[in-house]
Amino acid sequence: MAKDMTLLWGSGSPPCWRVMIALEEKQLQGYKQKLLSFEKAEHKSQEVLDINPRAQLPAFKHGDNILNESYAACMYLESRPMNESIEGPYVDDYHGIVLTFPLPGNVIYYNYRVPEGERHDSAIKRNKENLAAEIKLWEGYFQKMEVGSYLAGKAFSLADVIVFPVIAYAFRFGLSTKRYPKLGAYYDMMKDRPSVKATWPPHWLENPQGGDSLKDF
Amino acid sequence: MAKDMTLLWGSGSPPCWRVMIALEEKQLQGYKQKLLSFEKAEHKSQEVLDINPRAQLPAFKHGDNILNESYAACMYLESRPMNESIEGPYVDDYHGIVLTFPLPGNVIYYNYRVPEGERHDSAIKRNKENLAAEIKLWEGYFQKMEVGSYLAGKAFSLADVIVFPVIAYAFRFGLSTKRYPKLGAYYDMMKDRPSVKATWPPHWLENPQGGDSLKDF
Repeated sequence: MAKDMTLLWGSGSPPCWRVMIALEEKQLQGYKQKLLSFEKAEHKSQEVLDINPRAQLPAFKHGDNILNESYAACMYLESRPMNESIEGPYVDDYHGIVLTFPLPGNVIYYNYRVPEGERHDSAIKRNKENLAAEIKLWEGYFQKMEVGSYLAGKAFSLADVIVFPVIAYAFRFGLSTKRYPKLGAYYDMMKDRPSVKATWPPHWLENPQGGDSLKDF
Repeated sequence: MAKDMTLLWGSGSPPCWRVMIALEEKQLQGYKQKLLSFEKAEHKSQEVLDINPRAQLPAFKHGDNILNESYAACMYLESRPMNESIEGPYVDDYHGIVLTFPLPGNVIYYNYRVPEGERHDSAIKRNKENLAAEIKLWEGYFQKMEVGSYLAGKAFSLADVIVFPVIAYAFRFGLSTKRYPKLGAYYDMMKDRPSVKATWPPHWLENPQGGDSLKDF
């Protein structure tokens, strides 16, 4: 199992270190690895981009399963017994999806979160650019998936539980299903799932639209 | 199992919603729950504080196991089969520990992260206060644990994998083991663990001290 794993890492980065401890604990010492230098900006190299389009470390893959987010990687390693083959019950096909989806809150709630005297147009612009880049990345992930698939493959998984509420939040604040049709199709599929219907936020039922801060994204 | 669970939640909060979807998917519909209002500041009530000292929602507990961080709660629910009794292999005693430990990076790397024209002494002060409060909270958690125990109880677990690198980071930047003796004892125990020694950041071996930004905390 270890020989099918590759980890690109930076020294002292807590997210990288997490994954390395988990690999050691699972006795997967034989994995391919390469130490890269943040100072030399090696985390922005093509080698990293091929695994992690955010140009961040860790960049971790196991076979075709890419897990760049450290919690996701730890959960992935935890969920499969040592030396188990790649076809496990947990992740059928990970499609390069990470478990985090930065909350659009930095854009929607900027004025609420930042005191008046500390607000800057340059910061607002940067937050919007970062969010737009992230949303485009996700639309790209969904484009590569088969129609009707869940985040971790054919089966609904913990990844969907964790990610869906943030996607729903973005659409509630005006994200366009025309510009992001694959995210929109996933949203449509998920919103009819019994567990999601049973837990739909009550005040969203009363007021389906939350605002339009994301309508121009 | 569900009847031993309590969830305090806010409508539309993605972290709350995650936990609720996971509970539905695990067919744990009978849990105790209460919808609180952010607008009325009910998340700051004593009822919440009794479960979540950060005064945030969700506040979730199962028996004596408290899991306020949504990823941690989802992993916890995922890891135990439906209707299993509380004595499972995964979490022996959760001690109210959550899986996240806000990176001291907001303090250590403020000047690196915030462009010069956007820096404010008031923001630096607030970041420091937030970090100090968080570190004190963790020292308090460790005080309640038995000596020599890991984050999730007697056994080393995924929680330690995820949290330890950030604690190590804080000590590298000058956090005082005199003022935070329990955190220091945990650090000392963990740093001798084979998986941790095998993965110790190489540039930390060369330069054991990273800076002193946290020495006055």
